[in-house]
Amino acid sequence: MDVNEQYFNNISERERAIFEGAITMGALFHQFVGTPVNTENAATLERSIKDAMELQPCIKKVEVVINKEILEKVKNEYSYVSLTGDMLDVKVVAEYGDRKAFIRLRYIEDLNYPLMYVERIE
Amino acid sequence: MDVNEQYFNNISERERAIFEGAITMGALFHQFVGTPVNTENAATLERSIKDAMELQPCIKKVEVVINKEILEKVKNEYSYVSLTGDMLDVKVVAEYGDRKAFIRLRYIEDLNYPLMYVERIE
Amino acid sequence: MDVNEQYFNNISERERAIFEGAITMGALFHQFVGTPVNTENAATLERSIKDAMELQPCIKKVEVVINKEILEKVKNEYSYVSLTGDMLDVKVVAEYGDRKAFIRLRYIEDLNYPLMYVERIE
Amino acid sequence: MDVNEQYFNNISERERAIFEGAITMGALFHQFVGTPVNTENAATLERSIKDAMELQPCIKKVEVVINKEILEKVKNEYSYVSLTGDMLDVKVVAEYGDRKAFIRLRYIEDLNYPLMYVERIE
Repeated sequence: MDVNEQYFNNISERERAIFEGAITMGALFHQFVGTPVNTENAATLERSIKDAMELQPCIKKVEVVINKEILEKVKNEYSYVSLTGDMLDVKVVAEYGDRKAFIRLRYIEDLNYPLMYVERIE
Repeated sequence: MDVNEQYFNNISERERAIFEGAITMGALFHQFVGTPVNTENAATLERSIKDAMELQPCIKKVEVVINKEILEKVKNEYSYVSLTGDMLDVKVVAEYGDRKAFIRLRYIEDLNYPLMYVERIE
Repeated sequence: MDVNEQYFNNISERERAIFEGAITMGALFHQFVGTPVNTENAATLERSIKDAMELQPCIKKVEVVINKEILEKVKNEYSYVSLTGDMLDVKVVAEYGDRKAFIRLRYIEDLNYPLMYVERIE
Repeated sequence: MDVNEQYFNNISERERAIFEGAITMGALFHQFVGTPVNTENAATLERSIKDAMELQPCIKKVEVVINKEILEKVKNEYSYVSLTGDMLDVKVVAEYGDRKAFIRLRYIEDLNYPLMYVERIE
């Protein structure tokens, strides 16, 4: 069975790239939000998120940056916090056929919301 | 600030509907996979997944069916399992402007994979 | 095989009740943190968390209250937030043999931390 | 405020070690189950789970092994799977005062269940 032929012939290459990039962004957020994090483990967490999400269909590249300024300000009994969306800056590149979609997750202060959007399509 | 104007003017209404529906499908899968489930709580779990995911941007409707045949076959010491992707049949309707995208998650036996795809766009 | 005989004969009934209650509290937090929530779906989310976590070994009762005051203050473009630990007030009753452990999760302002602790044992 | 004095003076050092180890085991399972994994990213995922969960209160050491035999048998369109409990072998060492609790998560074939139990207490 050709899965692309059978399940995806109703959308364009550009739309497929958007579709797969968006799935991965939603997946990433909801898989990893809640993970214990501070400045000590931020790097290995960023790396494992990248490596895991790059396995998903059509995903060429994932870049994850966890906001270290927020982590440095953490002051509580146990010196770590649960990962939240406002700490995440993520870029996902999804490719299908000749098209690449660059998807971004970034906390937008004016919206008070971690926004996912399409930065550009090539 | 008009968020649609500022962040989404580079994609069409059709693409936006696909984008938002896909995010929600990825989010749903990775938020709820792992939840303890058997035939007793399947209905309240289906309902809460629906209600939570319908809050996301542009999502008009979510339908969640957890496979009861799989749940009925569960035989272990504790009579429940962790929710997995092969138990899920989900329909998400995302709407933006004049366009609606109907996104589906369904376990495809031939692929041995819980596939997310666009069923149709209106 | 008697699982209790084989795997749990090195701890007391009291310790077993603590052990199972603690597992369920950790599980609950990390399964559901991140879920989209506002005042509209809080009740169905509370219910499904309760029903799911009551399936776990030795768990007699789970009560979940999501802080509605926090939800009412939510002001952002999309009128919902991701569930976080500071919104949760949870009671788990775990029972083994003649002992019951009452476990609590509650945000402690002085600690700036959602603390899990044993309220009492009967 | 001395959190140990205020919230944990009703349980012994041994019970506290069990309590904290159990929380972390439940947390670990429900945070990471569902993560995309294959033989390529298993090592970075193991590492990030370890580093994140070692941040939790009283946790001295976490060892995570994801079953590579299961991963090598994966045959599907996209060459990865979602992490499930039956792939996990985890050891958590929790310490409080003079006591250490060694908690284990391991899939027990006879039970068809990923069991969490106390291996020993020192």
